[in-house]
Amino acid sequence: MLYFQNDYSEGAHEAILAQLVRTNGEKLSPYGSDIYSAAAKEKILTACGCPEGDVFFISGGTQTNAIVIAAMLRGYEAAVAARTGHINFHEAGAIEATGHKVLDLPHHLGKIDPAELRQFLTDFWADANCAHMAAPGMVYLSHPTEYGTLYTRGELESISAICREFDIPLFLDGARLGYGLASRTTDLDLPTIARLCDVFYIGGTKVGALCGEAVVFPKGNMPKAFLTTVKQHGGLLAKGRLLGVQFDALFTDHLYLSISQNAIDRAEEMKEGFQKRGLTFFIDSPTNQQFLVMENRTLEALSQHVAYGFWEKYDDTHTVVRFATSWATTKEDVADLLALLDQYC
Amino acid sequence: MLYFQNDYSEGAHEAILAQLVRTNGEKLSPYGSDIYSAAAKEKILTACGCPEGDVFFISGGTQTNAIVIAAMLRGYEAAVAARTGHINFHEAGAIEATGHKVLDLPHHLGKIDPAELRQFLTDFWADANCAHMAAPGMVYLSHPTEYGTLYTRGELESISAICREFDIPLFLDGARLGYGLASRTTDLDLPTIARLCDVFYIGGTKVGALCGEAVVFPKGNMPKAFLTTVKQHGGLLAKGRLLGVQFDALFTDHLYLSISQNAIDRAEEMKEGFQKRGLTFFIDSPTNQQFLVMENRTLEALSQHVAYGFWEKYDDTHTVVRFATSWATTKEDVADLLALLDQYC
Amino acid sequence: MLYFQNDYSEGAHEAILAQLVRTNGEKLSPYGSDIYSAAAKEKILTACGCPEGDVFFISGGTQTNAIVIAAMLRGYEAAVAARTGHINFHEAGAIEATGHKVLDLPHHLGKIDPAELRQFLTDFWADANCAHMAAPGMVYLSHPTEYGTLYTRGELESISAICREFDIPLFLDGARLGYGLASRTTDLDLPTIARLCDVFYIGGTKVGALCGEAVVFPKGNMPKAFLTTVKQHGGLLAKGRLLGVQFDALFTDHLYLSISQNAIDRAEEMKEGFQKRGLTFFIDSPTNQQFLVMENRTLEALSQHVAYGFWEKYDDTHTVVRFATSWATTKEDVADLLALLDQYC
Amino acid sequence: MLYFQNDYSEGAHEAILAQLVRTNGEKLSPYGSDIYSAAAKEKILTACGCPEGDVFFISGGTQTNAIVIAAMLRGYEAAVAARTGHINFHEAGAIEATGHKVLDLPHHLGKIDPAELRQFLTDFWADANCAHMAAPGMVYLSHPTEYGTLYTRGELESISAICREFDIPLFLDGARLGYGLASRTTDLDLPTIARLCDVFYIGGTKVGALCGEAVVFPKGNMPKAFLTTVKQHGGLLAKGRLLGVQFDALFTDHLYLSISQNAIDRAEEMKEGFQKRGLTFFIDSPTNQQFLVMENRTLEALSQHVAYGFWEKYDDTHTVVRFATSWATTKEDVADLLALLDQYC
Repeated sequence: MLYFQNDYSEGAHEAILAQLVRTNGEKLSPYGSDIYSAAAKEKILTACGCPEGDVFFISGGTQTNAIVIAAMLRGYEAAVAARTGHINFHEAGAIEATGHKVLDLPHHLGKIDPAELRQFLTDFWADANCAHMAAPGMVYLSHPTEYGTLYTRGELESISAICREFDIPLFLDGARLGYGLASRTTDLDLPTIARLCDVFYIGGTKVGALCGEAVVFPKGNMPKAFLTTVKQHGGLLAKGRLLGVQFDALFTDHLYLSISQNAIDRAEEMKEGFQKRGLTFFIDSPTNQQFLVMENRTLEALSQHVAYGFWEKYDDTHTVVRFATSWATTKEDVADLLALLDQYC
Repeated sequence: MLYFQNDYSEGAHEAILAQLVRTNGEKLSPYGSDIYSAAAKEKILTACGCPEGDVFFISGGTQTNAIVIAAMLRGYEAAVAARTGHINFHEAGAIEATGHKVLDLPHHLGKIDPAELRQFLTDFWADANCAHMAAPGMVYLSHPTEYGTLYTRGELESISAICREFDIPLFLDGARLGYGLASRTTDLDLPTIARLCDVFYIGGTKVGALCGEAVVFPKGNMPKAFLTTVKQHGGLLAKGRLLGVQFDALFTDHLYLSISQNAIDRAEEMKEGFQKRGLTFFIDSPTNQQFLVMENRTLEALSQHVAYGFWEKYDDTHTVVRFATSWATTKEDVADLLALLDQYC
Repeated sequence: MLYFQNDYSEGAHEAILAQLVRTNGEKLSPYGSDIYSAAAKEKILTACGCPEGDVFFISGGTQTNAIVIAAMLRGYEAAVAARTGHINFHEAGAIEATGHKVLDLPHHLGKIDPAELRQFLTDFWADANCAHMAAPGMVYLSHPTEYGTLYTRGELESISAICREFDIPLFLDGARLGYGLASRTTDLDLPTIARLCDVFYIGGTKVGALCGEAVVFPKGNMPKAFLTTVKQHGGLLAKGRLLGVQFDALFTDHLYLSISQNAIDRAEEMKEGFQKRGLTFFIDSPTNQQFLVMENRTLEALSQHVAYGFWEKYDDTHTVVRFATSWATTKEDVADLLALLDQYC
Repeated sequence: MLYFQNDYSEGAHEAILAQLVRTNGEKLSPYGSDIYSAAAKEKILTACGCPEGDVFFISGGTQTNAIVIAAMLRGYEAAVAARTGHINFHEAGAIEATGHKVLDLPHHLGKIDPAELRQFLTDFWADANCAHMAAPGMVYLSHPTEYGTLYTRGELESISAICREFDIPLFLDGARLGYGLASRTTDLDLPTIARLCDVFYIGGTKVGALCGEAVVFPKGNMPKAFLTTVKQHGGLLAKGRLLGVQFDALFTDHLYLSISQNAIDRAEEMKEGFQKRGLTFFIDSPTNQQFLVMENRTLEALSQHVAYGFWEKYDDTHTVVRFATSWATTKEDVADLLALLDQYC
């Protein structure tokens, strides 16, 4: 059986696992006050070029989104997101459970359009009834998006400028940030993201860790009593070391980027293989998630041999499916997948 | 100055006011346990043809929507509404403040399309990831809608049947229900609404009362401890008599329908006048709210003499505006408005 | 039947009712933007000696408490209150429904002790684990308390100073404020309260109005977008005039204080009558609520002729009951009550 | 440096770590649908003697408490807990953040007294105003308590019977359950707990795991769509294997009990050592947490050599401190601690 359905099928990258094993017997301070968490924070801030910033480790993505948004919005404010944004549809109402509305904008392959964002904010505040509506209090982006697409530096600069103009923070959900940074087409790096965003997170769960996301407040703007807010929302691990040790490993010797690179290299091989075989792409994705439109009959046959991700119904006889590579995907995995396709498509 | 900007510019209908004055000195039980509230409930249930039902009075519409939805949904469930539904955009995130998401469907002049609703619910539960999304736990309709449009009996029957098929309640927001019932084109009456919906409310604030909405649970299905839930959400008035007395008056001698009829008669006169003058309708509304597309220059001039409601920007030189009649609008008001239009348009 | 069970058995004071009747036909701006609301706000600020302050009208007490607390606390903060504080036990969890904990202090006849408050705050912040606890973010007082007792000027000054020392706001719940201001023993007046508190409300529901509480932010410190927060919590009436007109009447010609005075005068007569008859007081209350410990058998007999308030079980054969006067209680009512007691006790 | 300040200073027990390493490369289904989670659930249900039950793994204790309580209470209900219960003071208001009040009862060395619980519930429902209060909808116990004390089988049976009488679930927080089960004085085992409680959790974080708590619904009573509720509250790990693998190891060959036994054996040695040295116990604890009253001067000296837990101020010159053993504490650690005490006390 081949596994391409997601990028979280394996355990941890071996270097991370080794670091967990090596440090396991040490007696460490709880709740993230340990030396590995401290070291990881410093390495991350260095990598982001914002030594004056703050980092907080939280176990998972939905939790991180809910906590960051709850901590940064006032009670009557809402988060603005693409309609396809993870917080809008695939988090079981986690944002709303903290009392905040998500205001959705049209998506363009998963992305917000800066001009549409500006128009939305302009119209909102021009509306005579705006005091009767939840106020746009933050912009949320996912990068890569749920479609694997990426914002360009120009787009992120525009969105950042709009946020500053309207005096609201910009939050970038980087659950798969590594795969964005390693993409062959991107012109964004960590320091630029840190400069343009008010808060973002560097995803670990989908990029080599067992769990964990590193929330970065690049401008010394971590909300007051953020640890208390994290605890209040159930996100504070007693053994914070579990996250600190993993991120310490991820940010030692550029591990985060190098393992992300593997996912991208495998994805490009896979994409090239798909193209050669004349398969129908649903969209053109520059990251580790590739989307094909396939016949249901073919998919049924394939499903005996390869696990792929169901994305959405395309029409009565076709389905959009996702093939995702990860830090753990091998050249052999890709070759085997392409051989399977030769056999069944 | 003429007033057509909304249907809540006046105080109470004189019969309601008289009843408030007449009963003012009586010493009554608090929190809605008074004799007038009891009488009003009985009259409403009789008018709705559901004597086994329950009625609860709450002061305002947003509050009613938030309380009913919070009381009827489980924690992980969401309310399905038209994108233009009042709960989705004009209640400042009140539903989300109770922890629940609003799932929006496309609107058709403010209405949900039954086929689209069925497709949405079918697709939702067919989605392999549905457990990761807030579940559609209720359907919310406004009737009349925010555009003044009305569901037909056939449409409401379809939507009701879909709700039963998916085992979720149907909630009808009747903030302006009187104006729907009195419309010349409707084939819906209170008993039919009570039969097809699981909960609905009969709006008082916009139909002659100082404040107050009557929530009807037509099937003996009022949630357990509903009074406690109302109190918890700040909706329980110590002097519940204020609501009971008003609804007692509204449901005595068909006052609710007869004053609604006035609004509709005046709206039809107004509409006819608009048509004769060749004005541009934004939509064709069968109730007390009429929407015109007008030139900004004309509007500026008019605004010295008549208060109208801003609806939305149409284009750079035109705006959609609302002219609303109410139980209090007189034939003279309409004639004066039309005369004004003759002068300025 | 005599009515002494609470201070909200009647409708509105006649002057208020007259003003509602007189203004009923006027077409007014909605949502509290009307001229009567504006006039009432100005009169209230003048009475409080804080012309630079803000006033917002909300329908009821529980709603007011929940909205003010939600608007003023950060997400991880809690309100500190006496264990017997209204927000702690008699509001159905309304504060918690907005996500905030109530931290309770021991009560002394319903009051917080300033020294205990200071100790609590000092200990809290000295606790090594304080970041793992909901932070005390506000102090809540009721005045008069649920026991009818009053803070002295000295006590309020102490509590105010403690709040400033710990940099948290002081919120005074004045649901029965009139009866406190009119008490024969008080040394507090509105300007002093406005000076010492960061927010407080002047109760209308229990002091002559049909409904309505006037929230005062005396220092220009009304939270940003407060109207939106009020709407989000269901507290914004479309016909805000209902509240504005009533408070305009209440703050014209000292009506608020003069009708409160009536309640106090009647309560003092009643209290004197109780004393003369050797009845057992549960506590010594200087306001309109008087508490007696009575035999259950006597109470059963009395209950045929007078409505009193059940307060709490005292022992197996005795109960604590409340006799409340109000702005509407007459000398005859009190005389009749005392005559009844002569007959049954 | 010696470490006795808590029971979560180390990583994972070596058998757990080995299982994580061994399974690391396997490609497994996400979100807890993997084979190790399935195996762990079966083993836990077998150990609890309730094969028809359900188990759900969640990362941490506060999160588990908040999710279980939110899932099991209706909106207007509250959890009843000892004043010292973890949910009441040390979870940063996490329960309230889900909208629910905690109703506190007096504690007796951390425990609820069954008779007081019964009285509280009886009085609550007898109160004429009970509909105006958050209803007691669940009883929460911690076992061991925050003071290390244990309920007896008789006490748990009483509390369970009371819960059934009042038709509310009984929830047992077993963050340190292993140390309770291994105590020399307990007459409670897992099957008895499963029989008497409606939901409980078996703590992993403090008993050998890196993170993770196993929530057991012993009676097939897991709330509908519980996975969605867990996701909504941020508690669903993409790599659910992290929890499944650990609990699979913990419930293989009685590892959970045997490593708990180590903590108890070490605690008893420590306790005996304290007694021999005539130290002052704050309470008599039968589990892994021992509380001493010590002079501040002694503590200052000790703190250079041993990490202990600050519990509370005792008086101006004394402090209550906690010495906790764990699955990882060695006989040498205890001997070293006692030698230190000989030197400094």
